Amino acid sequence: MPLHVLAILNQPSADAAPHDPDAPAFTFADPSQPHLSVMDLGATRGDGIFESISVGSGRAQALEHHLRRFASSAAKLELPAPDLDVWREAILAAIVELEPGAESWVKTVLTRGVEGDGRPTGWVYAAHTADFSAARTEGVRVVTLDRGYRHDVEQTSPWLLAGAKTLSYAVNRAVLREAHRRDADDVIFVSSDGYVLEGPTSSVVFRRGNTLLTPGTGLGILDGTTQANIFRFAETLGLETGFELVTPDELRAADAAWLVSSVRLAAPVRELDGLPLAVDSEFTAALNDYLLALRD
Amino acid sequence: MPLHVLAILNQPSADAAPHDPDAPAFTFADPSQPHLSVMDLGATRGDGIFESISVGSGRAQALEHHLRRFASSAAKLELPAPDLDVWREAILAAIVELEPGAESWVKTVLTRGVEGDGRPTGWVYAAHTADFSAARTEGVRVVTLDRGYRHDVEQTSPWLLAGAKTLSYAVNRAVLREAHRRDADDVIFVSSDGYVLEGPTSSVVFRRGNTLLTPGTGLGILDGTTQANIFRFAETLGLETGFELVTPDELRAADAAWLVSSVRLAAPVRELDGLPLAVDSEFTAALNDYLLALRD
Repeated sequence: MPLHVLAILNQPSADAAPHDPDAPAFTFADPSQPHLSVMDLGATRGDGIFESISVGSGRAQALEHHLRRFASSAAKLELPAPDLDVWREAILAAIVELEPGAESWVKTVLTRGVEGDGRPTGWVYAAHTADFSAARTEGVRVVTLDRGYRHDVEQTSPWLLAGAKTLSYAVNRAVLREAHRRDADDVIFVSSDGYVLEGPTSSVVFRRGNTLLTPGTGLGILDGTTQANIFRFAETLGLETGFELVTPDELRAADAAWLVSSVRLAAPVRELDGLPLAVDSEFTAALNDYLLALRD
Repeated sequence: MPLHVLAILNQPSADAAPHDPDAPAFTFADPSQPHLSVMDLGATRGDGIFESISVGSGRAQALEHHLRRFASSAAKLELPAPDLDVWREAILAAIVELEPGAESWVKTVLTRGVEGDGRPTGWVYAAHTADFSAARTEGVRVVTLDRGYRHDVEQTSPWLLAGAKTLSYAVNRAVLREAHRRDADDVIFVSSDGYVLEGPTSSVVFRRGNTLLTPGTGLGILDGTTQANIFRFAETLGLETGFELVTPDELRAADAAWLVSSVRLAAPVRELDGLPLAVDSEFTAALNDYLLALRD
């Protein structure tokens, strides 16, 4: 069985024409071969959206939350609405097609398509996950970096697409290079008015006493699928959960903090801007065991 | 002869290995066929750069300025430096290959390549230009929109890549949709601290008395190739030129203003946020005649 799988959607949105009226909803293709046009607006303008979904023991985790967020990102970019039934079917089929492994992941991508064509491009890509055990147990060294935007930019300036998971991620990659230059592993974005936002590919979760907190929604950041699952788990343990806008100094005063994401899962922040932060190894292990065992 | 031409670079940077050690520097390919991998970071992360170059009577205009800016954008994104000799050769060959037309344009794209591969992807795409005569003569209705960033963000936060011409242009397209919603044609970005910056695909030039002005560099905006040519032309006419940071109100008080870019050339701003702005038809025509006649 293949080590990575590509399914190309024939009609990613019911609001746009299929690429081939006689073809099935999706077809598998060799991911090592080219499948995109140099005129695709995903490639020339980063004009599209994506989701990265974790697969544990052959099951897509938080699938419905990811699909809802995919549709929400599409709406923010005014893309044709993804036909979620077709996407779900393609995701599940790609997982079945993939060589089984302990951990895998699936990426869904919807672009505005070839310029002038009017039909969006959609694909599902599945592969095995890299080994993130060191980040999950030893933790990550994090620096805070200015994201440039105020914390209220999603309300004042929706055209900046803050809070949509777009393909325009050059900045999300540039900040990781800046982190490495500062001898760190990852980044927490801070708004231009001084509030903790999110990581470039993760949500921020922190613990204060018996309460798990996250910055919350409406701040131009993503509605975290892994953060939501962690809050559900915390509630079953009798912990409180909540949303709170904090400064980097307030985050540094937390009892523990994590960068949480679908594929790497919960990575404890062991250093923030060069200062050590306590790592709660036992609770972190419980979080990751819970996330790894999730079946939907 | 073809109506659009694609040249794929075998070795876009001398700092990275060629895709095929036995192949020539570039090869022509059918642009209607797929040539990009779904794992190309240009397509999945908008992680790359581009230039759009005008071609007048078979000659690439401001070619060396575009190539310098291409290299500068690559440096900002820490991409392997483009081998400008190879890019220049591919651009000139693509123009020769294209069906001659009054106006054409060439796009150069350099991406970080397939994730994990280490070799960047590069291509040159040439095609005929759409008819922009209405925008050039009647002008465009423009709205100002918040760009979210302060005017000094290029200095304080270089990881935001402001001033690089990246493939992460989803916002530059979203603001045009917002403009259309407001019954306008185009946009002028304003910094979060209230200064005029640039258009999503153009520079702002304005005239006050006998002086042509533009916001200038270091503001997280592009070093405009067309703006530079217009300033050269203005100086031959005996006009003064200069750089000035202005507010939208100060721009509205100008004697005339234009959005200038490589392909559409000089489009007079005839309305700014719903209020009329004077259009200097004679000078605008002289600008566009000059830009159309440029040979290098």
